[in-house]
Amino acid sequence: MTKPFIALDWGTTSFRAYRVSAQGEITDQTAAPEGIMAVMDGKFEDVLEHHIGAWDKTLPIIASGMVTSRQGWVECPYLDCPAGADELAKAITLHTTTSGRKVHFITGLHHNSTSITHDVLRGEETQVIGSLKNGATHFVTPGTHSKIIAVENSRIASFATYMTGETFGLYRNHSILGRLMAGDAPDEATFKQGVEKAFADPAGILHLLFSTRTLGLFNAIKPESLSSYLSGLLIGQEVAHATKHHSKTANYQVLGSAAVGANYVAALKMAGFNVTLGDPLCGVYGQRIIAEKAGVI
Amino acid sequence: MTKPFIALDWGTTSFRAYRVSAQGEITDQTAAPEGIMAVMDGKFEDVLEHHIGAWDKTLPIIASGMVTSRQGWVECPYLDCPAGADELAKAITLHTTTSGRKVHFITGLHHNSTSITHDVLRGEETQVIGSLKNGATHFVTPGTHSKIIAVENSRIASFATYMTGETFGLYRNHSILGRLMAGDAPDEATFKQGVEKAFADPAGILHLLFSTRTLGLFNAIKPESLSSYLSGLLIGQEVAHATKHHSKTANYQVLGSAAVGANYVAALKMAGFNVTLGDPLCGVYGQRIIAEKAGVI
Repeated sequence: MTKPFIALDWGTTSFRAYRVSAQGEITDQTAAPEGIMAVMDGKFEDVLEHHIGAWDKTLPIIASGMVTSRQGWVECPYLDCPAGADELAKAITLHTTTSGRKVHFITGLHHNSTSITHDVLRGEETQVIGSLKNGATHFVTPGTHSKIIAVENSRIASFATYMTGETFGLYRNHSILGRLMAGDAPDEATFKQGVEKAFADPAGILHLLFSTRTLGLFNAIKPESLSSYLSGLLIGQEVAHATKHHSKTANYQVLGSAAVGANYVAALKMAGFNVTLGDPLCGVYGQRIIAEKAGVI
Repeated sequence: MTKPFIALDWGTTSFRAYRVSAQGEITDQTAAPEGIMAVMDGKFEDVLEHHIGAWDKTLPIIASGMVTSRQGWVECPYLDCPAGADELAKAITLHTTTSGRKVHFITGLHHNSTSITHDVLRGEETQVIGSLKNGATHFVTPGTHSKIIAVENSRIASFATYMTGETFGLYRNHSILGRLMAGDAPDEATFKQGVEKAFADPAGILHLLFSTRTLGLFNAIKPESLSSYLSGLLIGQEVAHATKHHSKTANYQVLGSAAVGANYVAALKMAGFNVTLGDPLCGVYGQRIIAEKAGVI
């Protein structure tokens, strides 16, 4: 029988931990905007204990995400694609904290990409492993760096990173495009207008982006909706490019929060694909599957 | 005979003024990083006098650039394309300062763009008018918002804005891509590597950009050259998109500083076009031509 454990999802900008029972149920959880970039002087253990100090120190911790990167706690070498739960289980790195906790790190993947030579991810591999039972052929993980991931025979075959989320933040917060915006309340119709514009001419994005300003200046889009338009342009451009060689029978699942995930679901539907929204806890499921295969829980 | 005047090029981020003789020679000049965004409480006249207070108050001032925008000194309505020196001369707006200076504002252009409905520019129209004698069919004005401008029968027929310069700054200074960079010294070979990558797949820019990080992480591009690579990706994407419908007999001229201009010249040559670098003073020439037609000098 599988043992209880602590699931640790420690990314660039957020910390999330779950206490998981032997049956796989979440019995406690904690989250903080304390990603690895906010950890000073390598004090990862202090931050961990600050958040989960009250949880049983004998529970094994299963960790994934950017915490295994060079900027993280314990750097774990990438595994090459294709890779699935077996390969990830074999590659687990064990680290014992000074307080005696056993942390089992699940490493990320490297893809010998034809387009950019090297592509990488950390954390998404575990989310995908936790979502395989849903039968999708492709997964999308929205975020700072969105990933479009292709699965074959229950293994991650290839993937591509898109800087969509980070790019949205740059234009929203640091560019002239943000000046005319009033809030970020979602406006689905205007979002779709942006998606359609990007679908019609995906190579024109540096030009199309300027329409976020001019359509605002000429009152063709109201200030409250410009943020949705910008989001539509960028997500539309990503979806247009990522899916252009995919068969229309590809079956997508979006792994992410309901808010951002819904945008990707809408754009993928507009592109003619079958698409569902995945389970927000797929990362915990994936950690359980991989750790079980490794025999550590 | 044409009269002497003061040429004022006042943009978003910089202020430039030239004292020009009756023969068209520059007899004095001043420049400051005091663009219209740096002018507080509408005190344009104070900033102007601070910089050119010593120059003869009876000289007419010919002004162009973002100083005629809504965020500028005197908002001038856009002229629609096509427009040339005659239309711009007729549309000049006269403003008299409290110190008695006559400022003649040259307005910008609006284009009923098929791609983004509304496209606009201010300042570049004057640079193009000052460069027409060179016989180019297309002009490129690099900058925060780069413009690709088509000329027919000595008038600006159409144009498209690309957010290339601003986007470079966003990724360079505010994104994860800047983290691995060491300086911005130009590396022509690596710049061209970025251009080629963008030419091969211009719709993939949000994906290709991520290679600025991975090629750095995997030591395929050295930290000193990553900035040139990013620049090549973005300029390559702009040139690929802007020129895709242009005949190879199009004759380009790049109007901009030697440093940034050289990058556009290189990318346009790689795309197979005839291209030259224009005169940095083309804006002053254009102001002289337009003001002369208007009879104000």
